[in-house]
Amino acid sequence: MSGAAFVGEARFDRNDLPVNRLFTVPETMLSLKTISGAPTRLGPTIAMCRFLAYRGQPAFLADLVCAPARSLVHQSLHAAEAKTETNGDGFGVGWYGERPEPGLYREVRPAWSDENLRSLCEQVRSRLFFAHVRASTGTSTTRANCHPFVHGRHLFMHNGQIGGYPRLKRRLEALIPDELYDRRVGTTDSEAIFLLALAQGLEDDPVSAMARTLKLIRGLMNDAGIDEALRFTAAFTDGESLFAYRWACDGQPPTLYFREAEGGLLVVSEPIDDKARGWREVPKGCSLVARGDTVSVQCLNEAMDRLAA
Amino acid sequence: MSGAAFVGEARFDRNDLPVNRLFTVPETMLSLKTISGAPTRLGPTIAMCRFLAYRGQPAFLADLVCAPARSLVHQSLHAAEAKTETNGDGFGVGWYGERPEPGLYREVRPAWSDENLRSLCEQVRSRLFFAHVRASTGTSTTRANCHPFVHGRHLFMHNGQIGGYPRLKRRLEALIPDELYDRRVGTTDSEAIFLLALAQGLEDDPVSAMARTLKLIRGLMNDAGIDEALRFTAAFTDGESLFAYRWACDGQPPTLYFREAEGGLLVVSEPIDDKARGWREVPKGCSLVARGDTVSVQCLNEAMDRLAA
Amino acid sequence: MSGAAFVGEARFDRNDLPVNRLFTVPETMLSLKTISGAPTRLGPTIAMCRFLAYRGQPAFLADLVCAPARSLVHQSLHAAEAKTETNGDGFGVGWYGERPEPGLYREVRPAWSDENLRSLCEQVRSRLFFAHVRASTGTSTTRANCHPFVHGRHLFMHNGQIGGYPRLKRRLEALIPDELYDRRVGTTDSEAIFLLALAQGLEDDPVSAMARTLKLIRGLMNDAGIDEALRFTAAFTDGESLFAYRWACDGQPPTLYFREAEGGLLVVSEPIDDKARGWREVPKGCSLVARGDTVSVQCLNEAMDRLAA
Amino acid sequence: MSGAAFVGEARFDRNDLPVNRLFTVPETMLSLKTISGAPTRLGPTIAMCRFLAYRGQPAFLADLVCAPARSLVHQSLHAAEAKTETNGDGFGVGWYGERPEPGLYREVRPAWSDENLRSLCEQVRSRLFFAHVRASTGTSTTRANCHPFVHGRHLFMHNGQIGGYPRLKRRLEALIPDELYDRRVGTTDSEAIFLLALAQGLEDDPVSAMARTLKLIRGLMNDAGIDEALRFTAAFTDGESLFAYRWACDGQPPTLYFREAEGGLLVVSEPIDDKARGWREVPKGCSLVARGDTVSVQCLNEAMDRLAA
Repeated sequence: MSGAAFVGEARFDRNDLPVNRLFTVPETMLSLKTISGAPTRLGPTIAMCRFLAYRGQPAFLADLVCAPARSLVHQSLHAAEAKTETNGDGFGVGWYGERPEPGLYREVRPAWSDENLRSLCEQVRSRLFFAHVRASTGTSTTRANCHPFVHGRHLFMHNGQIGGYPRLKRRLEALIPDELYDRRVGTTDSEAIFLLALAQGLEDDPVSAMARTLKLIRGLMNDAGIDEALRFTAAFTDGESLFAYRWACDGQPPTLYFREAEGGLLVVSEPIDDKARGWREVPKGCSLVARGDTVSVQCLNEAMDRLAA
Repeated sequence: MSGAAFVGEARFDRNDLPVNRLFTVPETMLSLKTISGAPTRLGPTIAMCRFLAYRGQPAFLADLVCAPARSLVHQSLHAAEAKTETNGDGFGVGWYGERPEPGLYREVRPAWSDENLRSLCEQVRSRLFFAHVRASTGTSTTRANCHPFVHGRHLFMHNGQIGGYPRLKRRLEALIPDELYDRRVGTTDSEAIFLLALAQGLEDDPVSAMARTLKLIRGLMNDAGIDEALRFTAAFTDGESLFAYRWACDGQPPTLYFREAEGGLLVVSEPIDDKARGWREVPKGCSLVARGDTVSVQCLNEAMDRLAA
Repeated sequence: MSGAAFVGEARFDRNDLPVNRLFTVPETMLSLKTISGAPTRLGPTIAMCRFLAYRGQPAFLADLVCAPARSLVHQSLHAAEAKTETNGDGFGVGWYGERPEPGLYREVRPAWSDENLRSLCEQVRSRLFFAHVRASTGTSTTRANCHPFVHGRHLFMHNGQIGGYPRLKRRLEALIPDELYDRRVGTTDSEAIFLLALAQGLEDDPVSAMARTLKLIRGLMNDAGIDEALRFTAAFTDGESLFAYRWACDGQPPTLYFREAEGGLLVVSEPIDDKARGWREVPKGCSLVARGDTVSVQCLNEAMDRLAA
Repeated sequence: MSGAAFVGEARFDRNDLPVNRLFTVPETMLSLKTISGAPTRLGPTIAMCRFLAYRGQPAFLADLVCAPARSLVHQSLHAAEAKTETNGDGFGVGWYGERPEPGLYREVRPAWSDENLRSLCEQVRSRLFFAHVRASTGTSTTRANCHPFVHGRHLFMHNGQIGGYPRLKRRLEALIPDELYDRRVGTTDSEAIFLLALAQGLEDDPVSAMARTLKLIRGLMNDAGIDEALRFTAAFTDGESLFAYRWACDGQPPTLYFREAEGGLLVVSEPIDDKARGWREVPKGCSLVARGDTVSVQCLNEAMDRLAA
């Protein structure tokens, strides 16, 4: 995949309809950035979004989302590990407080300039929360298209892409049952994946259900003759346990790290501070499962292979 | 239909999902308004949106959209003929200039406070333009959900409702061919109707195609056992001719007026000034067709009956 | 003051600059409303904003801001006691949680369609909070112009108007000391009053300081030969005690009610439910003071008279 | 000035008030960027905004604002010459059509994702227009704070900074006469400079008036003991002639280029395409004056020296 391709491939520009990132970035600019950036990563590890999930002792969102040296809010302006993207196409935070359902604050402005986000992060202390800054791959910048997505007690957020999604959209949506489809309020592939995964049993068996979901999507892509990759990192929670996924059909999923410390578990697209010692990569093709007092890594590839058998 | 029903019936509130007009209006308040308003109209002629279409000698948008005593912008704050609604859930203008494709400006803020709208209306002089202020019936307030909708050279805007739409949404969307479905960027029933009508030949035969479309939707409603009404006023143009529609399955479509004067044809949800003399109602069940130098009224009901035969 | 005057008098329209409520409402429309509304109130009790303050046992914001039959969110769409206004020019909530400084969420969209507001109100439980829906009298619809305003641990919100404010603005701002003027981030008269009151000792003696502030402003108006009225209802808190004010130079301040019940004190622009029995009016020219376990009414007029002596 | 300083110096963060770019960027991140970027430019030529002005044969805005390889819209996401900034804190376009007053479209969202901007640029053809993408130096992201600013028939836009502005704000505003101060709708230093320059005769003698204005501001800075620099590039028009300025008290003003070609004059913060041959720098300390059929460079330093004499 060329440097220019990532900008255009998932767009609806060809339809001449209003979309995000409306104006193509010329190859020359990407070359410039490649020189000064990290050229070898441009292909596989293109950052499309950045996210953070926390589970542990109640913590102020500000301490993890805003304060760290390379916090998510900083990544909205300057993602360090990706360098190719400003994540300025909206953001969202979801958190659990006194109710079983999470709170949700999503906005279309860049995270770095949102006073409300700052105030909220300073006030809200939570034992489990998600935060996400978005770089759109084509769908419009609306609140309904910002992550995390909520469904009852559940939260989901996503970083990645379904290659050739516009050619796939209808078939994928057709797999979502009526009662879940009614809950679709935006137009992103991410929300569609979430609803499809719920239909596959995400609430009951988060790892197997996601394996089934990815397999289904991969099947649709094959049927449609799509050569482009399916790359997927994501996080999901029911308000108690936390699940994170890292998988790609071409073995090149977006980065995903975790650290157990400070009274809790942090899962991030990229480390939020310099303390490299504590961060571990979630291995490619795996899921991170934090349930009760244990944090474990489960093999997603295996789960998918079992399905194939 | 009770006074309170109109607020809730087309919503997704039951899904507990983010929707517009998130908070129910109690019956007591509606009663208050009924007393001071026009009680007999509360049932059938509930205003959900207000719109204006112009075709004629090039005119500044400001002279028709902003300046008149009861201009569309005023109606955004105080719709006179409906009295039950503030049309504050976004707005849009579409206009034809030097290109075959129209310009489009849509925004989620109320029209009455938008400086950009005022400036644009003062600058743009056009021979054909649409303007619309929105009162959401449930879908979220995003630009993509604001009218008018554009497709190539065409503009469409709508006022009305499909009874029981949430139960109907998937089936209706399933009737939209792939290449048109790809162009769907919002989540409203209005946009779905437009795309379905395009699939039915709206570009070639605007009256018959719309009759077919309404018949199709009516059929879907019957299949789904929906008792609520399908009420529909709308306007459509290809950049040359102008078409307006007024139809309802229960004989109670929203109001629609037109006036030929000032070098052009004006079509409006309600008169924009006191000069009652010039305004004529588009009869129920009819289409207004402005093509070349002629303006005529065509019977939509007849077109639908022919389909039935 | 005529019905039409209230719309135009405090505007900057004459400057031909971008302002809120950009389009004048014709007298005819106001007449219509006068007929069906409450004509005798149109003069003195024109609602420009609506607000609510709560102090007591920790309560979910949703239970007071969103749920009641005539909640503040409903008033954003339909203020019952005023009838002349939609309060759709932004809103704000401020609340005290675990930190001495309050949280603040302000947005330019109408309160009735804001998903974030709904979610926040469902999550946040607080012993002291303010909520406000805005109907601009001329300044632009920006977050910085939405109430409540925050200063360190303090919150302030306002409903009313300074007659002839544009002619007064510079002199009023000139009375604000440098260190407070630096904190001005918006352009409203309300924020200027707050900063001026802080300079007059609002933190130490909220009633006397506000009396001095109103006297100062009244003096500036006299100096400038302004005949229009100064009308003022407001609420202020330091995070512990709660103060509310109701005063006008012409004896016609906006309405202000309170109720002690449900484990706390509610102060509102107008009752939020039908239970008329519990609501008492804050008398004209008075302050409501809730400090420690006592709620008392203090005479603001007297405080001002003492200043005059 | 250190790399980190540029982020913080002009902010109001110390006031703990809602401001733009709310979260500090750590030195480590800036170092990273310095390494891969253009370290020697970090000090003097920090890009705070990017702009473009056109005067000539009527041209579609799209052809100059959106289409070029390094167009202003691209610069909103990736400014090439500055590398240190995303210009995502709002944008604006102003253009002259059939009226003496310009049209104005300003929005707080990033330019790269605004559908309305794209549509407007494709529709509007103008003989004279300004476009600006903003990177805030501390004031909040509101439409009123976006450039260009309008005053009657005049447009003004600015890139630069007044060192120590918060300490200077009141004195600077105090120099603006009442009738102009009334027109202030935002809170930026840029708008204040514009109004002050108007008071100094900008409409009659744009070069001398701007020299007087800069001298005044420099004097205020000296009085306040401010060591930081005053750096200023800007453009101004009365709807006929076009003026651009490039000046700094320390000889290090932001870049400014122009090109005469394609039937008109283009003035830009940085070249919008690769054709380096056509672009000429406006010399430091100079003004570019396009009046009637001539384009000339005038010495601003000299004009200021004459004032000093």
